[in-house]
Amino acid sequence: MKKIGIDLGGTGIKVGAVLSGRIIYKKSRLTDLSWSFEETVDKIATLTKEVADQAGIDIAKNKSIGIGSPGLIDTAKGEVLYSNNIKWKNAPLADSLKKRLGVDIKVHNDAKVASLGEAVYGAGKNYKNVVLLTLGTGVGGGIIRDGKIEETQASAGALFGHMSIDYNGRLCTCGRRGCLEAYASATALVLDAKAVMKVDNINGKDVFDAYTAGDKSAKVVISNYIKYLGEGIVNIINVYCPDAVVLGGGLSGSKEILIPELIKYCHNKVFGAHIIKTEILVAHLGNDAGIIGATLLE
Amino acid sequence: MKKIGIDLGGTGIKVGAVLSGRIIYKKSRLTDLSWSFEETVDKIATLTKEVADQAGIDIAKNKSIGIGSPGLIDTAKGEVLYSNNIKWKNAPLADSLKKRLGVDIKVHNDAKVASLGEAVYGAGKNYKNVVLLTLGTGVGGGIIRDGKIEETQASAGALFGHMSIDYNGRLCTCGRRGCLEAYASATALVLDAKAVMKVDNINGKDVFDAYTAGDKSAKVVISNYIKYLGEGIVNIINVYCPDAVVLGGGLSGSKEILIPELIKYCHNKVFGAHIIKTEILVAHLGNDAGIIGATLLE
Repeated sequence: MKKIGIDLGGTGIKVGAVLSGRIIYKKSRLTDLSWSFEETVDKIATLTKEVADQAGIDIAKNKSIGIGSPGLIDTAKGEVLYSNNIKWKNAPLADSLKKRLGVDIKVHNDAKVASLGEAVYGAGKNYKNVVLLTLGTGVGGGIIRDGKIEETQASAGALFGHMSIDYNGRLCTCGRRGCLEAYASATALVLDAKAVMKVDNINGKDVFDAYTAGDKSAKVVISNYIKYLGEGIVNIINVYCPDAVVLGGGLSGSKEILIPELIKYCHNKVFGAHIIKTEILVAHLGNDAGIIGATLLE
Repeated sequence: MKKIGIDLGGTGIKVGAVLSGRIIYKKSRLTDLSWSFEETVDKIATLTKEVADQAGIDIAKNKSIGIGSPGLIDTAKGEVLYSNNIKWKNAPLADSLKKRLGVDIKVHNDAKVASLGEAVYGAGKNYKNVVLLTLGTGVGGGIIRDGKIEETQASAGALFGHMSIDYNGRLCTCGRRGCLEAYASATALVLDAKAVMKVDNINGKDVFDAYTAGDKSAKVVISNYIKYLGEGIVNIINVYCPDAVVLGGGLSGSKEILIPELIKYCHNKVFGAHIIKTEILVAHLGNDAGIIGATLLE
């Protein structure tokens, strides 16, 4: 059956019609932080109705529609408790959207929803316990067990970016020291590259390209990056022991270097590695994971 | 209904009869590493029959009997895949014990089983998602959700002692650097105390006593210890977001100092601390947690 999934982000709204885990039609628009909460919900509802029309979906026949939203969510009430990103506090997203669409709305945190999509229909689909680790501006993720988001208070947890790997280390934007995000995000990789490679204008892919081309300072940067990210992944495996760790976000595009180097780094460091087997893989649904995951919320 | 729980350790076997989460009768004996696997199972069976007789339990009327064992466990087969502690490899514990007792046997890792007991009938009983953190010779634990052990391959995971908090830090027995165990175990606390307080013969409780008595070097040691353990706990909360973290093991006896200092240390470091509420508590079932937890295996 065709289902609708909604992915609300900090800068835009994406809505898609999904059949068997594949998007058959999607539409998106930018959001404006000057909009009131009710205005934003209006835009979400309008876009959803447009997608339903175009994809031949009768919204009323959906048992519910799922939406991923930034922030901490009360998933039982469908309320966005707090989002610094879209500046909402105690926003009754499910109730307001239900008034406009006439169907139950299921709300969950956007990073967890995208993780759910990738775990069920993407790189994690053959695994039972899957951890997603997103390497972008920050480091985020999700923990998916048996095709469901690991439920916690306020949709929190899985903040792998804020696991410290060096209690005396780099200062993180969250105020702690040594957070994985300060070492293994794309932002951190670029900062390291600028410092070591003495260049002003470089992005994550450039660093991997320079590494492939044999640049010695790029090798230093990437070798450190593998160590930082590897330490984070070994921590995740020792603590959570998933069947697969799936890397997403911009940097996962450099998988030809990243994956074999990470496997090499992590293998001997995992506790009980002669018995425990955790695959390290790369996400492949890209930005569609959020829409697809939203259709799986129940 | 009275149930039987078995706790197999590195040095002994403990069997208890449990009613509503309380041990009404228990018996224990030392084990001998020179025994074969079959001999050990014989002793477990004999002790179990004795406890059943004394407690007036008809073993055949139990749907199953649970046992916690050291090592990595295939919980579906009831097989101990590997235990360095009791020197077993692919040991068919459930099958062998079932032959002797005539009832289904459920096997799980001992640390997870003790965590289950403490989460359901001990300090964690009012919480949904509970993490146990045991501060002893090493640092171990368990993750309990909705009264069940978080299932992973080979009963692994929850190895909080092998989460690195300093990738360049102290060498751990597992071969990695910076593992929490090398900082927050009782062993590590005593090593730190010997170095800072310039004493040869001291135990964990002595350090806390010296702190209470106003000893300045003990203050340094305890203040560092709170930082190390606090960093581990904040990592656990950011990654797993439990409703309660319960501290067990020898050091948890010094709760009057440990708990308020940890709450103070962790509070501002947890991501989203204005919404997320994770209690930090002390275990109270002590060594009985393993027997009690074993009665909850299904």
